[in-house]
Amino acid sequence: MSENRKPTLAVVGATGAVGSVMLGILSEREDVWGEIRLVASARSAGKVLQVRGEDVVVQALSPEVFDGVDVAMFDVPDEVSAEWAPVAVSRGAVAVDNSAAFRSDPEVPLVVPEVNGAQARDRPKGIIANPNCTTLTMMDALGALHDTWQLTELVVASYQAASGAGQPGVDRLYDEIEVVAGQRELGQTSGDTAAAIEGKLGADSPFPAHLVLNVVPVAGSLKDGGWTSEELKVRNESRKILGIPDLKVSATCVRVPVQTTHSLAVHATFAKEITVEEARAALEAAPSVEVRDDVANGVFPTPAGTVGGDPTVVGRLRQALDFPNTLDLFVCGDNLRKGAALNTAQIAELVAREFTA
Amino acid sequence: MSENRKPTLAVVGATGAVGSVMLGILSEREDVWGEIRLVASARSAGKVLQVRGEDVVVQALSPEVFDGVDVAMFDVPDEVSAEWAPVAVSRGAVAVDNSAAFRSDPEVPLVVPEVNGAQARDRPKGIIANPNCTTLTMMDALGALHDTWQLTELVVASYQAASGAGQPGVDRLYDEIEVVAGQRELGQTSGDTAAAIEGKLGADSPFPAHLVLNVVPVAGSLKDGGWTSEELKVRNESRKILGIPDLKVSATCVRVPVQTTHSLAVHATFAKEITVEEARAALEAAPSVEVRDDVANGVFPTPAGTVGGDPTVVGRLRQALDFPNTLDLFVCGDNLRKGAALNTAQIAELVAREFTA
Repeated sequence: MSENRKPTLAVVGATGAVGSVMLGILSEREDVWGEIRLVASARSAGKVLQVRGEDVVVQALSPEVFDGVDVAMFDVPDEVSAEWAPVAVSRGAVAVDNSAAFRSDPEVPLVVPEVNGAQARDRPKGIIANPNCTTLTMMDALGALHDTWQLTELVVASYQAASGAGQPGVDRLYDEIEVVAGQRELGQTSGDTAAAIEGKLGADSPFPAHLVLNVVPVAGSLKDGGWTSEELKVRNESRKILGIPDLKVSATCVRVPVQTTHSLAVHATFAKEITVEEARAALEAAPSVEVRDDVANGVFPTPAGTVGGDPTVVGRLRQALDFPNTLDLFVCGDNLRKGAALNTAQIAELVAREFTA
Repeated sequence: MSENRKPTLAVVGATGAVGSVMLGILSEREDVWGEIRLVASARSAGKVLQVRGEDVVVQALSPEVFDGVDVAMFDVPDEVSAEWAPVAVSRGAVAVDNSAAFRSDPEVPLVVPEVNGAQARDRPKGIIANPNCTTLTMMDALGALHDTWQLTELVVASYQAASGAGQPGVDRLYDEIEVVAGQRELGQTSGDTAAAIEGKLGADSPFPAHLVLNVVPVAGSLKDGGWTSEELKVRNESRKILGIPDLKVSATCVRVPVQTTHSLAVHATFAKEITVEEARAALEAAPSVEVRDDVANGVFPTPAGTVGGDPTVVGRLRQALDFPNTLDLFVCGDNLRKGAALNTAQIAELVAREFTA
């Protein structure tokens, strides 16, 4: 493919929550692209969006929109990706897909550039999948540790942001905040906050319970054994990305009233003995990880202190007192950036380099 | 002690966040008490509070206030309990203490009535300790399972409410909510929410970072190895209450923007094989546990759906896919009721029964 030209990029889903972060990321990063084409549903066609400081008119999704496209990024619902990523490939593009449609397909690599970037070249279907945002939150950090100590077990509890459910999730959270602001008696009695919110906003929400002054231990859809789709993605995608098919994983995925940035409490067991000092050094050396681990001086990861940045933020490193070769840690990552748009852009750039190498 | 009379109770710390919940609980429950004496710092003396529908004047803490008292409940800071619980004992009272001052003392039983209530009678120092609220959240449920399957390992991540830091914690959370209400651009950039909150409310907070639109992975004080006091309490108190000195425990304690009710994601390993159906039946049979475990019909535990009630609410029961004899579950408990005032009242009632039995 090496033709030493700047390839053409299509951004499908350019008007969504991740899409708008993507346009910012494409404008900030080293510009490896020739034309950037913005694509969305017919409803959004004709809108004008800015990318790289230029106005670009959004085009409606169609087979023809992929003609001349080298790389097509998809940030659209699973069923739209399932239908349209192969169309883009048939028109000559490499598809980089951020839906769940292809992630478990053995012929589709699931790529985190810092962890398994080389796999992006091995794409028999012309499709590369971008991992789920919750899994992505910890992959850079765990990949850096797995290299040396060999990860064997993971117990994870998540603190997931509203924007994981897109812009409607963020809007609902802020609408709920406005209902409870100044209503200090609501939170004392079960059901009062829910009744006040339903009374003002209605019951139609992206979440199965109100999020303000609450946490909701259900994210995704219900699957076998009482597990949610989100919890199974953490298990299956961690195994595939890290290349550990027998990795033991239990995850509990919980939505919290945070706008953007997922957090994870991680209990990670390795094949070899690991100390906090060794782990900290390995994490500090990882290019995409920032260690904030000095509680005595108020330094620890929080979602509000991570949002808008590229690195995974890691802290609260502790050697498990009762479990051998085990580290407890807390990890935060912007679910719209590294958890979605940034990682997708990084994968697309890996492909772009094939044109200029 | 059996004298067949209604014993006299002193409530020390009657004006605090837990104290005011205690007065409500004492008014609701079967009335086993003769006189109820309310005690607080000199600053609050003379205040009139209602308990059992009657006005009671708050008395200042002094040695004499315990004269004629049979049971003295303490909900005050550790150092106040350390000084005054022995004073109450020296005046003839049994002290039931909700501070951390005596919990690790081998001569002081640490009691959850449904789990190890019989230990309340073995109190060589005349003091019975009430466990930490985070530990208490899961003790009823885990005690019910441990009876049959023998607990061996616990990995816990907490979602702790603001009222764990008392009324100042609740006030701070609502103050912060009012700052961010309607400010939808704040949560997109790291530090903007913190700057807005500090600008309006100042940096003086019961929490080491803002709580609204955030989670804070530090609760309690910093101890050896990077663990917090709260995390070590979960380990040490679970071992003592359940009577499993070698129980393996790793906890990560995180504060979330919830008013009242702590939640825990629990990964519990047992000596014997356990199924979800068996666990559900055992939990449903436990007197102080309510199972809400039907995600398909929107039934799962949340803090906002638990606050104000007595039972521990348990759901999201899942058999771990990769860990033998292991159950993943989500537990919610009102940290001011079962986590503090209710359990203290229950312990005091165990002692009261010694007077009337």
